[in-house]
Amino acid sequence: MSDGNFLGRRKGLLLVVSGPAGSGKGTVMKLLMQDPDSFALSVSATTRAPGKNEVDGREYFFVSRERFEEMIAKKELLEYTDYLGNYYGTPRAPAEAVLGTGRHLLLEIDVDGGRQIKAAFPEAVLVMIVPPGAAEQERRLRTRARDSEESILRRLERAKAELTEAEHYDYVIVNETGEAEKTADVFRAIVAAEMASVRRIPDLKERYYAN
Amino acid sequence: MSDGNFLGRRKGLLLVVSGPAGSGKGTVMKLLMQDPDSFALSVSATTRAPGKNEVDGREYFFVSRERFEEMIAKKELLEYTDYLGNYYGTPRAPAEAVLGTGRHLLLEIDVDGGRQIKAAFPEAVLVMIVPPGAAEQERRLRTRARDSEESILRRLERAKAELTEAEHYDYVIVNETGEAEKTADVFRAIVAAEMASVRRIPDLKERYYAN
Repeated sequence: MSDGNFLGRRKGLLLVVSGPAGSGKGTVMKLLMQDPDSFALSVSATTRAPGKNEVDGREYFFVSRERFEEMIAKKELLEYTDYLGNYYGTPRAPAEAVLGTGRHLLLEIDVDGGRQIKAAFPEAVLVMIVPPGAAEQERRLRTRARDSEESILRRLERAKAELTEAEHYDYVIVNETGEAEKTADVFRAIVAAEMASVRRIPDLKERYYAN
Repeated sequence: MSDGNFLGRRKGLLLVVSGPAGSGKGTVMKLLMQDPDSFALSVSATTRAPGKNEVDGREYFFVSRERFEEMIAKKELLEYTDYLGNYYGTPRAPAEAVLGTGRHLLLEIDVDGGRQIKAAFPEAVLVMIVPPGAAEQERRLRTRARDSEESILRRLERAKAELTEAEHYDYVIVNETGEAEKTADVFRAIVAAEMASVRRIPDLKERYYAN
């Protein structure tokens, strides 16, 4: 977002954030969103019914199945997935509006969505947030006691598949227990480093001498 | 340098720092070296005569031409160059000792050296520090008044060649006038991001489940 040097005003980053259950990525996203001038959180569209306390346009855009399939057909989504019979997807228009302002867009999506985003937008940055190890992950899921035993086992199984996908990601941050602030700092460091990446400044020399 | 999670103890980064005259990279290096637990500055070997106030082993290791050519033959240098009739090079043994402790090694070398390092050590990170533009660069060189007009013109010409090499670098940081601290912060961010790079953690899943 620097206007002060020869690089001029620049687009924000498309940031995919994934992580297995118990990674604590939700807490990290909240910390990043304390700086709304730098970051915006993408709101997904879904066909599932709103939960109580959920507000349309805040947690999700709640749409009908017909409308969602129209969004797919009209390429109005950056990525989408069908999970347990419901669609979830990232609307394109608000995403592009955010990036145009120079703010960075956070997409909290799963590894399937991450793969779709990377294929369509190679310049996207994929970050995986993980617990400090499998044992600690299981402890976190059992401690929060919000899941049934069956759900815990399913989440642990799913985590294995997600870790396999990590090799397609750009970065992995180990979210130590009680250290969400530190994880957010590493995340901000990734953003600063990516903005300094030579790949993102193809016409460096021309810009330098135009100044 | 984290010992606290499944990634275990890790090697430091080999960090090449280059930049045209007037970039202010020396000031940035001094700021980084305020944290000697994280960074070490490589001391080059050279065949040129010591200047007054220069101490052997601090500014340079001052060696004979014969000894330097022996170092080349025995592959005791990570990179070397012949500049205006004198050799300059980076001794391998102290570099490897630093990296083994988990500290990051700063090599303040030119773009030729940077190219050699990248070819021999693809995992090295190449950072170029540049002034905010050609006009400001010229102003800095004239203001510090330590160079002759001829020398200034030669340095400006050389800067053009260096900017052409920037595309082979990984990162470029614009060192705004009076903002060396900010530049050092971006540099530290690059280090943190590189340590979180998935490329550097090839056995992520195995490590995770061993824990």
